[in-house]
Amino acid sequence: MIKVGVVGGTGYTGVELLRLLSRHPRVELAAITSRGEAGMPVADMFPSLRRRVGLKFVTPQDAQLERCDVVFFATPNGIAMQQAAELVAAGVRVIDLAADFRIRDVAEWEKWYGMKHAAPELVAEAVYGLPEVNRAQIRGARVLANPGCYPTAVQLGFLPLVEAGLIDPDHLIADAKSGVSGAGRKAEVHTLLPEAADSFKAYGVPGHRHLPEIRQGLALAAGKAVGLTFVPHLTPMIRGIHATLYGRLNKDVDLQALYEKRYEGEAFVDVMPAGSHPETRSVRASNMCRIAVHRPQGGDTVVVLSVIDNLVKGAAGQAVQNLNIMFGFDEEAGLDIVPVSP
Amino acid sequence: MIKVGVVGGTGYTGVELLRLLSRHPRVELAAITSRGEAGMPVADMFPSLRRRVGLKFVTPQDAQLERCDVVFFATPNGIAMQQAAELVAAGVRVIDLAADFRIRDVAEWEKWYGMKHAAPELVAEAVYGLPEVNRAQIRGARVLANPGCYPTAVQLGFLPLVEAGLIDPDHLIADAKSGVSGAGRKAEVHTLLPEAADSFKAYGVPGHRHLPEIRQGLALAAGKAVGLTFVPHLTPMIRGIHATLYGRLNKDVDLQALYEKRYEGEAFVDVMPAGSHPETRSVRASNMCRIAVHRPQGGDTVVVLSVIDNLVKGAAGQAVQNLNIMFGFDEEAGLDIVPVSP
Amino acid sequence: MIKVGVVGGTGYTGVELLRLLSRHPRVELAAITSRGEAGMPVADMFPSLRRRVGLKFVTPQDAQLERCDVVFFATPNGIAMQQAAELVAAGVRVIDLAADFRIRDVAEWEKWYGMKHAAPELVAEAVYGLPEVNRAQIRGARVLANPGCYPTAVQLGFLPLVEAGLIDPDHLIADAKSGVSGAGRKAEVHTLLPEAADSFKAYGVPGHRHLPEIRQGLALAAGKAVGLTFVPHLTPMIRGIHATLYGRLNKDVDLQALYEKRYEGEAFVDVMPAGSHPETRSVRASNMCRIAVHRPQGGDTVVVLSVIDNLVKGAAGQAVQNLNIMFGFDEEAGLDIVPVSP
Amino acid sequence: MIKVGVVGGTGYTGVELLRLLSRHPRVELAAITSRGEAGMPVADMFPSLRRRVGLKFVTPQDAQLERCDVVFFATPNGIAMQQAAELVAAGVRVIDLAADFRIRDVAEWEKWYGMKHAAPELVAEAVYGLPEVNRAQIRGARVLANPGCYPTAVQLGFLPLVEAGLIDPDHLIADAKSGVSGAGRKAEVHTLLPEAADSFKAYGVPGHRHLPEIRQGLALAAGKAVGLTFVPHLTPMIRGIHATLYGRLNKDVDLQALYEKRYEGEAFVDVMPAGSHPETRSVRASNMCRIAVHRPQGGDTVVVLSVIDNLVKGAAGQAVQNLNIMFGFDEEAGLDIVPVSP
Repeated sequence: MIKVGVVGGTGYTGVELLRLLSRHPRVELAAITSRGEAGMPVADMFPSLRRRVGLKFVTPQDAQLERCDVVFFATPNGIAMQQAAELVAAGVRVIDLAADFRIRDVAEWEKWYGMKHAAPELVAEAVYGLPEVNRAQIRGARVLANPGCYPTAVQLGFLPLVEAGLIDPDHLIADAKSGVSGAGRKAEVHTLLPEAADSFKAYGVPGHRHLPEIRQGLALAAGKAVGLTFVPHLTPMIRGIHATLYGRLNKDVDLQALYEKRYEGEAFVDVMPAGSHPETRSVRASNMCRIAVHRPQGGDTVVVLSVIDNLVKGAAGQAVQNLNIMFGFDEEAGLDIVPVSP
Repeated sequence: MIKVGVVGGTGYTGVELLRLLSRHPRVELAAITSRGEAGMPVADMFPSLRRRVGLKFVTPQDAQLERCDVVFFATPNGIAMQQAAELVAAGVRVIDLAADFRIRDVAEWEKWYGMKHAAPELVAEAVYGLPEVNRAQIRGARVLANPGCYPTAVQLGFLPLVEAGLIDPDHLIADAKSGVSGAGRKAEVHTLLPEAADSFKAYGVPGHRHLPEIRQGLALAAGKAVGLTFVPHLTPMIRGIHATLYGRLNKDVDLQALYEKRYEGEAFVDVMPAGSHPETRSVRASNMCRIAVHRPQGGDTVVVLSVIDNLVKGAAGQAVQNLNIMFGFDEEAGLDIVPVSP
Repeated sequence: MIKVGVVGGTGYTGVELLRLLSRHPRVELAAITSRGEAGMPVADMFPSLRRRVGLKFVTPQDAQLERCDVVFFATPNGIAMQQAAELVAAGVRVIDLAADFRIRDVAEWEKWYGMKHAAPELVAEAVYGLPEVNRAQIRGARVLANPGCYPTAVQLGFLPLVEAGLIDPDHLIADAKSGVSGAGRKAEVHTLLPEAADSFKAYGVPGHRHLPEIRQGLALAAGKAVGLTFVPHLTPMIRGIHATLYGRLNKDVDLQALYEKRYEGEAFVDVMPAGSHPETRSVRASNMCRIAVHRPQGGDTVVVLSVIDNLVKGAAGQAVQNLNIMFGFDEEAGLDIVPVSP
Repeated sequence: MIKVGVVGGTGYTGVELLRLLSRHPRVELAAITSRGEAGMPVADMFPSLRRRVGLKFVTPQDAQLERCDVVFFATPNGIAMQQAAELVAAGVRVIDLAADFRIRDVAEWEKWYGMKHAAPELVAEAVYGLPEVNRAQIRGARVLANPGCYPTAVQLGFLPLVEAGLIDPDHLIADAKSGVSGAGRKAEVHTLLPEAADSFKAYGVPGHRHLPEIRQGLALAAGKAVGLTFVPHLTPMIRGIHATLYGRLNKDVDLQALYEKRYEGEAFVDVMPAGSHPETRSVRASNMCRIAVHRPQGGDTVVVLSVIDNLVKGAAGQAVQNLNIMFGFDEEAGLDIVPVSP
């Protein structure tokens, strides 16, 4: 059993982490922090955790996080970068579910996130936690940057093509749709049920923070810069991301075989049979990513469909997967959840 | 490990059973029957079960159900009663998720269900599988009648009051609201998303089949006949039942203590703190029933709020709970699921 | 054409008023106030009003409301009571969509609303704007208290029985379900889509502000105090209220004829055929209330089903209906909207 | 007043036509046919039409459609083509909301729709009813082919660019999302609420019937064949289509000015301000199409966002708009509906 701390347990990625960690066979939940709710039993805020999580929220000061083996940051952007160095110095491994350590180019990060980076030296050492790409480096990571939700779905969908150099890297298109939990558990008007239900919209077309993260990952895979148009949309559901990806093929290839080979042996990537249309609910509440690849009418445009649960493979589940890799546990430990459908 | 068969695996209670049984540590899934889909891999119909259930649907003839230790019927009403006798004779225990064995008065059953009962002798021996009432008898059951969804939520909510004789038994009111999965996975117009979303309606006010089942259970608890007005409603969500129960108190009593004591030690009934309003999502995908009891403005009307997931505690989960009791397993085996929220 | 002002145009009742008034043949929209958004075109906040409403929000100071014939307050509770006197003195009629003038007992109002009333003298003169009860008084009203959403649905459902003295007035039960827009366009966590979708809950069981309003109306109809248990619920839809009402009959009566006679000639109350189950979507976006009355199994409990669109007959539409009565317009002017279904 | 018949009034486009026509100032509804429901009052099937539509469904034989001035076919594909010739011969104008007359190449139509065309000579004379393109021809049409829902949203979005030759016509991408009402009012499992709610999926990626219709329209605009990848998706809402369109610019141009000029004076196309993200709810229940055009990061990929209500501008509303043009009425007659939002 390892001791685990969670900083910021009141958002959606926080409560999802608790759902997963409370059943993890190798984990002891040591502390869950919240400045605003210190003293309140966690299960009072989240009744779904009654009888599962007995802890109360504590202030960061009282949490004694330095006694943990690993600390998850389920906080807004800009928090982990302020606290990670001290924890790392104390021998505590850090998994950040926010964006602080995802972008290697600190100037680029500062431009998109609109703040000065507090720990650029940790950015250099941080490992980007997409296990299907970086499993080896993840094992030894002291600071792990857990990928964003859109970046997970989009990269897993594009990687086989981009790594093999089979599509024009200058004109990639990612049309992505997210459930509303992706916007977080923040009191805002535009995500109220009467605003977001029974409606559909794009947002952030001029530029979204996940764009540089996806570009970085695909450029590493391509071995050169890529051009990407990324359009996120809000769809009236709670959980789920569906990425529809478009690329121009530059060579004839057995796409189905390519994808199956690339993800052979991966516990959490399921390449669907040719002709499939994965639904987001087929991965609901689970850490699975399901992918289907199409070539409509045999033309030169390839269409990839990639679905995840944004709170699991897109956040808390992938973080637990990374924890498992970092600590040498079975990669599926605590993640043996059958998707909830209907 | 026991060998388990499932008859009728293509409806919502069927796929939910498979979700639960596929992770059950003491269960080997031996056969899943479907006349219409024989030969099709189960996971082709339900992609959420990919990598979890490797079986194909088989015809009832090919299923060799007599080799199973227990067979679940996740079939429409009227099927289990035709096949149960033969299985019981072969030493196979039967758990019926439909209504065939729920009503002890066969004439009453035939009136409400509109058909001749095929196995009245099994009705006499069948055990009504509400563990919080009948745990002892369930252990030895050869034929188990798994309760209906509304009856589970309503009985668990009323039982402490009715058993203690604290409310007028002649004028009970159960105003119940169900998610649309309660109507089953049948192609019908009125449960299409464009018909049922963003709308709310009552149905079956003149009389619903769950009325005699609830009355029977409450009469047994009261020791005499009860009068019940039961109004079910369809609410635009996938899963969940919320029962709002009204009774006239005939005596002053500490309601909170009454409920806590009645359900002390129950793994799947959670009496919420005084003043609570349980949400259906707080039990989503889990076998839990959460209950809160109120006495508005200190008047003589008691209001009980009782929530379950209709497909779990209201169907497949309770069936697994009954399986666990029947075979002497840990009552929570295969049911250690943290509710999925949000 | 009359000149109309709207104070507080940024909430749901405000935008709904604008939807209705922008098409009203006898109305000229003169000013829409918002302190926070002054200067912004109304249609920038509500794109659904593009090409329909050309006005900008103005501050209350700049609105010159005293030049209007009538001013609607679509504001939080406690605003209209501060401004109404001055307007009335200037000869402007006031229609308050909030609760300031609904409760005749000022002390009772202050208890439930938690503030000191600023204009008790106007409470005395204000007319409660339920046209099916008070049409004559509404004609001459200078201050009109537009009813609450729940009170509209519940009173219209109970009135025929209560006025005729046919049910036990001491034990009325109103189990009401509302869409989430009833909670208003306020940034709050509990009404975010990921919190409120695919879930169902009761709230305010110990006491809700609409309780005294309903009790007052029913007591007037009964000619004596009534006892009411009122349990509101939040259901995952945008618009709509479904009230399920329970009463104990004290006499045999043709319920269907009673209801049809009571609402004969009413443009906005539709008594459905016997055996009906009205859906909220059958009144969506319209000012209609549809009612069905049942007597399950011929017992002594009567069940009334009453549905409205909470933003229309439960708020803005009823306010326009009252405007029409106050100014001698056709009562359906601006309200000739066919419900939107599906 | 003209006499109007509706063939096939029991589907979503049928009931939506009735919603619009029942308020149309120049229209008398003469007959609504349904083989299956003949004799039933229309308002019994659609309670939203109570007090609005007094007709009963009649059989086609009893409908005396030849006495109408115009007949709408709100039927499945393949019906109008069998009946149109006789009506036209009788001097009745025909508006087909299905696909029978949309594709000029009969062989292509037969390939996609899987049946022999019954009236190829009427295909040749039929006018494709997209008013923003074909207004002049629509005026004199005897047979009007009302466009499909996706084709309306996609063509209106692409037209300004394609007509002006500003994008590469060989690699157009249309990523479109539809509410579930687009699948029709048919009893099918995959559009049940528990299947389609809280989930998102693509469908028909290998080929969808609206593909040749869109290609035909864009080819006419471009003056040559176009290459189009069209991916439709099902999103969990009742109404609405959101088309996200991608093209490669071949020239620098003021996109905003281009769009505003192209749709100047159009009553039902609203070019939103630069930087906008139209929501489907901003057109809900109305005949409006709202469009925004973006050029992310100043690259060479243009992104167009186009939203309609699939049942209005995508079906019944556009059909009424065409009726207005055909009979010389005000183009907005019967369509002066303010979108319903929230």
